[in-house]
Amino acid sequence: MARAVLDPQLADKAGSTSKAATTQYVYFFGDGKADGNGRMKDVLGGKGAGLAEMTNAGLPVPPGFTIQTEACREYMRGKLSHQIEDEMLTALEKLEKLQGQKLGTGENPLLVSVRSGAKFSMPGMMDTILNLGLNDTAVEALAKRSGNPRFAYDSYRRLIQMFGDVVLDIPKKKFEHIFDGVKAAKKVKFDYELGPDSLQKIIAEYKKLVKKETGKEFPQDPLVQLVAARDAVFRSWQNERAKTYRRINHIDDWLGTAVNVQAMVFGNLGENSGTGVGFTRNPATGEHMFFGEYLMNAQGEDVVSGVRTPNPISELEKAMPKVYEQLKDITRRMEKHYRDMQDFEFTIQDGKLYMLQTRNGKRTGLAAVRVAIDMVREGLITQEEAIFRVEPNQLYDFLVPRLVEKGEKIEVLSTGLPASPGAAVGQIVFSAEDAVKYHTNGAYKSVILVRGETTPEDIAGMEVASGILTSRGGMTSHAAVVTRGMGKCCVAGAGDCTIDEKKKEMRVKGKVFHEGDWLSLDGTTGRIINGRLNTLPVNPDNPDLIQFMGWVDERRRLRVLANADIPRDAKQAQAFGAQGIGLCRTEHMFFAEDRLPHMQAMILAKTEEDRRAALAKLLPMQRADFQGLLKCMGSLPVVIRLLDPPLHEFLPKREDLLVQIAKLEATHPKSPKLKELHKILERVEELHELNPMLALRGCRLGITYPEITEMQAHAIFEAAAAVKKSGADPHLEIMIPLIAGPEEFKAQAAIIHAVAHDVFIKKGLAVDYKVGTMIELPRACIVADKIAADAEFFSFGTNDLTQTTFGISRDDCNKFLPAYLQQGIFKQDPFAVLDQEGVGTLIKMAANKGRSARRDLEIGICGEHGGEPESVKFCHRAGLDYVSCSPYRLLTARLAAAQAAIEEQKIFNPDLRTGNSK
Amino acid sequence: MARAVLDPQLADKAGSTSKAATTQYVYFFGDGKADGNGRMKDVLGGKGAGLAEMTNAGLPVPPGFTIQTEACREYMRGKLSHQIEDEMLTALEKLEKLQGQKLGTGENPLLVSVRSGAKFSMPGMMDTILNLGLNDTAVEALAKRSGNPRFAYDSYRRLIQMFGDVVLDIPKKKFEHIFDGVKAAKKVKFDYELGPDSLQKIIAEYKKLVKKETGKEFPQDPLVQLVAARDAVFRSWQNERAKTYRRINHIDDWLGTAVNVQAMVFGNLGENSGTGVGFTRNPATGEHMFFGEYLMNAQGEDVVSGVRTPNPISELEKAMPKVYEQLKDITRRMEKHYRDMQDFEFTIQDGKLYMLQTRNGKRTGLAAVRVAIDMVREGLITQEEAIFRVEPNQLYDFLVPRLVEKGEKIEVLSTGLPASPGAAVGQIVFSAEDAVKYHTNGAYKSVILVRGETTPEDIAGMEVASGILTSRGGMTSHAAVVTRGMGKCCVAGAGDCTIDEKKKEMRVKGKVFHEGDWLSLDGTTGRIINGRLNTLPVNPDNPDLIQFMGWVDERRRLRVLANADIPRDAKQAQAFGAQGIGLCRTEHMFFAEDRLPHMQAMILAKTEEDRRAALAKLLPMQRADFQGLLKCMGSLPVVIRLLDPPLHEFLPKREDLLVQIAKLEATHPKSPKLKELHKILERVEELHELNPMLALRGCRLGITYPEITEMQAHAIFEAAAAVKKSGADPHLEIMIPLIAGPEEFKAQAAIIHAVAHDVFIKKGLAVDYKVGTMIELPRACIVADKIAADAEFFSFGTNDLTQTTFGISRDDCNKFLPAYLQQGIFKQDPFAVLDQEGVGTLIKMAANKGRSARRDLEIGICGEHGGEPESVKFCHRAGLDYVSCSPYRLLTARLAAAQAAIEEQKIFNPDLRTGNSK
Repeated sequence: MARAVLDPQLADKAGSTSKAATTQYVYFFGDGKADGNGRMKDVLGGKGAGLAEMTNAGLPVPPGFTIQTEACREYMRGKLSHQIEDEMLTALEKLEKLQGQKLGTGENPLLVSVRSGAKFSMPGMMDTILNLGLNDTAVEALAKRSGNPRFAYDSYRRLIQMFGDVVLDIPKKKFEHIFDGVKAAKKVKFDYELGPDSLQKIIAEYKKLVKKETGKEFPQDPLVQLVAARDAVFRSWQNERAKTYRRINHIDDWLGTAVNVQAMVFGNLGENSGTGVGFTRNPATGEHMFFGEYLMNAQGEDVVSGVRTPNPISELEKAMPKVYEQLKDITRRMEKHYRDMQDFEFTIQDGKLYMLQTRNGKRTGLAAVRVAIDMVREGLITQEEAIFRVEPNQLYDFLVPRLVEKGEKIEVLSTGLPASPGAAVGQIVFSAEDAVKYHTNGAYKSVILVRGETTPEDIAGMEVASGILTSRGGMTSHAAVVTRGMGKCCVAGAGDCTIDEKKKEMRVKGKVFHEGDWLSLDGTTGRIINGRLNTLPVNPDNPDLIQFMGWVDERRRLRVLANADIPRDAKQAQAFGAQGIGLCRTEHMFFAEDRLPHMQAMILAKTEEDRRAALAKLLPMQRADFQGLLKCMGSLPVVIRLLDPPLHEFLPKREDLLVQIAKLEATHPKSPKLKELHKILERVEELHELNPMLALRGCRLGITYPEITEMQAHAIFEAAAAVKKSGADPHLEIMIPLIAGPEEFKAQAAIIHAVAHDVFIKKGLAVDYKVGTMIELPRACIVADKIAADAEFFSFGTNDLTQTTFGISRDDCNKFLPAYLQQGIFKQDPFAVLDQEGVGTLIKMAANKGRSARRDLEIGICGEHGGEPESVKFCHRAGLDYVSCSPYRLLTARLAAAQAAIEEQKIFNPDLRTGNSK
Repeated sequence: MARAVLDPQLADKAGSTSKAATTQYVYFFGDGKADGNGRMKDVLGGKGAGLAEMTNAGLPVPPGFTIQTEACREYMRGKLSHQIEDEMLTALEKLEKLQGQKLGTGENPLLVSVRSGAKFSMPGMMDTILNLGLNDTAVEALAKRSGNPRFAYDSYRRLIQMFGDVVLDIPKKKFEHIFDGVKAAKKVKFDYELGPDSLQKIIAEYKKLVKKETGKEFPQDPLVQLVAARDAVFRSWQNERAKTYRRINHIDDWLGTAVNVQAMVFGNLGENSGTGVGFTRNPATGEHMFFGEYLMNAQGEDVVSGVRTPNPISELEKAMPKVYEQLKDITRRMEKHYRDMQDFEFTIQDGKLYMLQTRNGKRTGLAAVRVAIDMVREGLITQEEAIFRVEPNQLYDFLVPRLVEKGEKIEVLSTGLPASPGAAVGQIVFSAEDAVKYHTNGAYKSVILVRGETTPEDIAGMEVASGILTSRGGMTSHAAVVTRGMGKCCVAGAGDCTIDEKKKEMRVKGKVFHEGDWLSLDGTTGRIINGRLNTLPVNPDNPDLIQFMGWVDERRRLRVLANADIPRDAKQAQAFGAQGIGLCRTEHMFFAEDRLPHMQAMILAKTEEDRRAALAKLLPMQRADFQGLLKCMGSLPVVIRLLDPPLHEFLPKREDLLVQIAKLEATHPKSPKLKELHKILERVEELHELNPMLALRGCRLGITYPEITEMQAHAIFEAAAAVKKSGADPHLEIMIPLIAGPEEFKAQAAIIHAVAHDVFIKKGLAVDYKVGTMIELPRACIVADKIAADAEFFSFGTNDLTQTTFGISRDDCNKFLPAYLQQGIFKQDPFAVLDQEGVGTLIKMAANKGRSARRDLEIGICGEHGGEPESVKFCHRAGLDYVSCSPYRLLTARLAAAQAAIEEQKIFNPDLRTGNSK
């Protein structure tokens, strides 16, 4: 094949006029200097930029060239420039000249690796091809030159297998089947026991397989191999697992990957060769120790794939002390050069060390904090930089248990949404009642509650469960929200799992699980794992964490409050640094077993009198709740929201009643129970709403039934008065939910002020209090100035505000959200990450209008976004006073707030921008 | 009782220091001049201003004084100024001097009437007291002076009865009981047959009743009577029926009423006295004729109450020709003076004419148009003024039948929401199937469909029904919207009616109605009337209307389009002046019997292939529909909206399935039907949504299942191509619903453009088309500039935009809207009248942003508000290009648009402002 036209896509355009070449597609590196450098990640990808940087830094890097990301984008658009071909050939010739070899040709054939490398690391997500250049003649040359025919044939069969899989789309299994067949025929246990003959036989079979599957021979032309491999890497940017990874990690689908073509070095040339990976510090703990693994006489994939168990890198010191010292020296220089912990790959070929790759190492949250602190101590980075070395979400690691996976063979049954982080290992049950039963009678030590979706009625079961698994519902479904509040692991919306709550059965991956079977949940990744793994416990008093959060808190401006309803959660929140309660949901108190009947009586009441009678029974209970909470919070502010949810949430489900009645009528038409059921049904029907989210809830309850607001205000002020009498100094903020305009606010605030006046006179003391409102409807944002004329604070309820701004119910969006994310219509779930363009505009409008009417208006946010880093940063920039989030999100929110404050400063302080302030 | 302290409220404040008197509370009129004048309606109320104006104009008005509205407001606030008392006494003395009488004292006692009178007329809503000043001695003086003891005693017993009812809150019935008892004892049939003795007996019993009910004697002090009556009138401003009237007529609750105290003249002094009411023109037809009724020897309330049947005023000409001529002359002058048709009251006392009241007369829509046209011809007003003499909503009168109520005794069972105007008289049925059945087999000539609420499945029944009655749902419920589209009468949300659809039974007012019973509905007022009234037919080709609408159309800028889905409605719309179709809802076509199975198959499909197969069957049907519509509309624009509603609307109801299955399982557990039902249930469960309005609908359907959009685009363009081939020139606008941002629009528009390209190439012709979007989510308003980069037109879907801006579902708001309206939190239902402050701000924002990105962006509105006058005027001011509404709202919309245009001009043209331009 002529070198001039390599690619059919290019061939089509051969006739077109060439335009002025403005883009450099191919960047060479080698012989101590590179076309690119480490800052060019956009162009060269992380790996390509790293190779350039390492080359420039004089590290022993095998030479090669990088095809830049623009080529990938052109490939996606179906318009690959023909200029790439010229540049590739030029670079290849340069490489051949430098190495004194020809690709796949001659006595000493050049072999290359072809690897992906995007701007952001996506480990294992895209494809790689090694040993490229080998063919029927080159393999013989290699065998001859290396004096190791076994290595040569093994390299060739590996190439055919990878090329077959990645480029030609032939199922991996078919290759494995041939390989295992020969092994079985030769009765050997390990791959390396196969001799050259066997490998040659395998090669022959592999080639037959390729012919059979594709109708064509395995390509012998190394250039055809190279172009095909390049395009396969481009294609692998678009494979499903890569897309999923990007979605989860919020990586733009249009970035594309670069392709790195690099001369092969071999760790499998014999017992004097080897390969390994390592970190400059321990990526699990952050400990400052040289950390890694290696294998002698092996290629990189052997280390990564886990087929052979590698040796700890410390053993290399004994085996090859000189290489070990050189590696330590190089990596030490690398860490200083990059000013961060490095993750590197190396190969030893005939006793000579090559550095294949280096990049900032991924690490756990625990390690991230430890490394950041150590590096500040070592003078490598400033405190401000340290603050950016930890991803806010990584701080979860300090608060939740983790699964221990090392050395265990795990079976992932399915992956749902990582709804609430942490890990849970336990026996499954299919109803809240069973959860409580088995937990209480001690039959199951740890319970995992498995449900289609959870409802407020499941609370008791959720309380005792170690973890929750649901097949429906998104990141802000009931299960997700409640478990995050509890700091409990939850995997939600696991659509692969078919759950039959009646039969107490879950089906997934063709397996059936029954009550009592063991599952392990990873709420951080969403994985559902078969069987019983071990867990690592929580470590919130970690001294590193305390030091780190000290730096964080010195720098943030936003206050961070917690959403908590009961003293236990409030105490937890204070331990995690809450500066108050930003949202106490009073309705959660009504779901308790001893209260629900009174709540139901209140709802079923036909007259105001009956309603008041039921409310009178609830009053002392609410008062006691508030007293506990206020006492626990001392003089910190406590924001209490009045009753919010639709009333039918407290009643039996309409469908259940209908079915129950239909059954009874068919079987026991004279049952006296029927009358009672009909009575309940009648009221349930009256309360039935087609769109409960948009119906009788929030302040609409208090306006329709003012006696409810009266009761709640009494409970609140009487509790506050009692706490104050006992010597404390409570700071109350009463929040009216779901306000659409000033009229609603005025009507409800009047009731609250009147009750406060009554109580204070009766008790002979006054308590500091404010009355404010949730801003959670677009209309409230538009008329915020008028609302602020009376309201003393705003708290954005961004869950509802997102719902109404988008017209999307967070409970129903799982029907189309996947399609939206897949098609890139939404970059991310707006219920997880605040939509700054739409919802954010309304927030800024409301904040500005509100402050225009009341200069000292206190403004916060208490929706789920209050603990999401990007959203917290937005709140900082929008000038909010505080964010309020689940206790388990407090650390994250604090860190994000500090990062936002520093990011803001950088705009004005050029010293900070370059990290030279200290 | 001393005159110094009349009022207990005032007595409390007697000690307080008096502040500078800046407010005049009491305005005198009489003897040819008045303190006030006709322009002081704010202060004196309509009646008080009228009396002042009439007095100033030299009309024979009985003298008196008006206590201004500020006093009523002070009374409502509980802070009545004591200055009022002084002014009242001064005015009373002046009145006494003028009349040469003393209030309730002496040989010729002065008697007065005490009447309410607010800025806006509220006929019959507030209280009136006549003959005030009478007591045990004055009655004797009156008897002596008039020489008519019967009249004197009758006046006194009337006073006690009215005072007892209005001031002392004694049930009217108790007085009537006494009166009827005496009549029965005396065996007389008519009131006037009772002699002085009987009346004295009644007076004695009445006084006993007052003592028994209140513990106090009937007050003999005329001043005590006066103050108590004044306060009762103030209180009557706040009675329930007055509040309701104001709510319906959008009158501010804080205006208050004035109180008019006026010397009594008596129409019941014998056969030479009389009283009457009249109009300067016929208020039903507008005909220019002297119109009215009178009774000899009677007081005003006898005419109004309907106890005696009055005589037509023409008979007065024979009875008292001089008085008749004087009355005609005076009223002719009044009409010229006020430049509008007058409604007046008069009394003849001993052959002398007194004018008691005059005001602009209420009239029907038919009369309003006729009067307006005539007055222009007569040179009284300009065409512009004429346009304001008709309320836009009054034009319904030309389009809908009306109930004939004259002379019939009607029993109003209940009053629901006036959801769709017009009248219907028919036999009731409780299901759509029954409606179709009885209509088809001719059993019932006219059917009224009675339902809890209607759903799309009821369409066939609604089509054949004369009218619809529902017990649930608001002004924009399914029943309301659909019937308005059909121009069919509907009373919705009649909460008093308990409807049992299973038993085929309706209970209201203690009565039970069964299938086949006759009801009469008045959709214009919401009344549900027992039995079978007659109706007046529609008159759309009225030449007055045609002339009037000609003036209207010359002046409006807004284009007026119609919401219509089928050729029949489109033709109707063109007849009413539609300049195009602004909203064709494609989903309405899928509910037809022959299509629903294919629609269901499409929804139940598990794979894209099966879905495409079902869609392929729907394609030719949709194409035929569109072809019909486009053909009918010629070259006028036709806006077609893609599929919008949640899919479950096309499937059986979940609850019904659950109940059906539960019954079958209990009774026939082996029924083969169970499996099938379970299969449907499974899909229904999958599609089940907690908040369907916020779930998988609108463009989300087309994004999740692009093949639906493809099918619809094919149907549209193929239909358009066929119509164009037949020689017409269709103008298509394809509208993508429920867009939240530009990404959704781009994705859907790409499909539409691709299909258009395909079809045009295949058919060898191109059709003029635009692709635009509904703007119906707050987020779309916020990012409207980005959407307009691609979208060629916007159409505001204000139903949904109101829902999401307020976070209120229009299907559920009836749960709390009554409380909101009653408490004045909402001034009006935001689904009926556009919320200009909230939703309107978003509309203006979107229009401005949209035009900033695309200068020639076409902007309209197609929500229910498009036919509501205030909302149409807002659209004009917001700079929209068109409104689109139900065909039956087109006249209203056209008139409102013209009024808006003229109102706008007035800002710049002072001549027009005072109506002197011609």
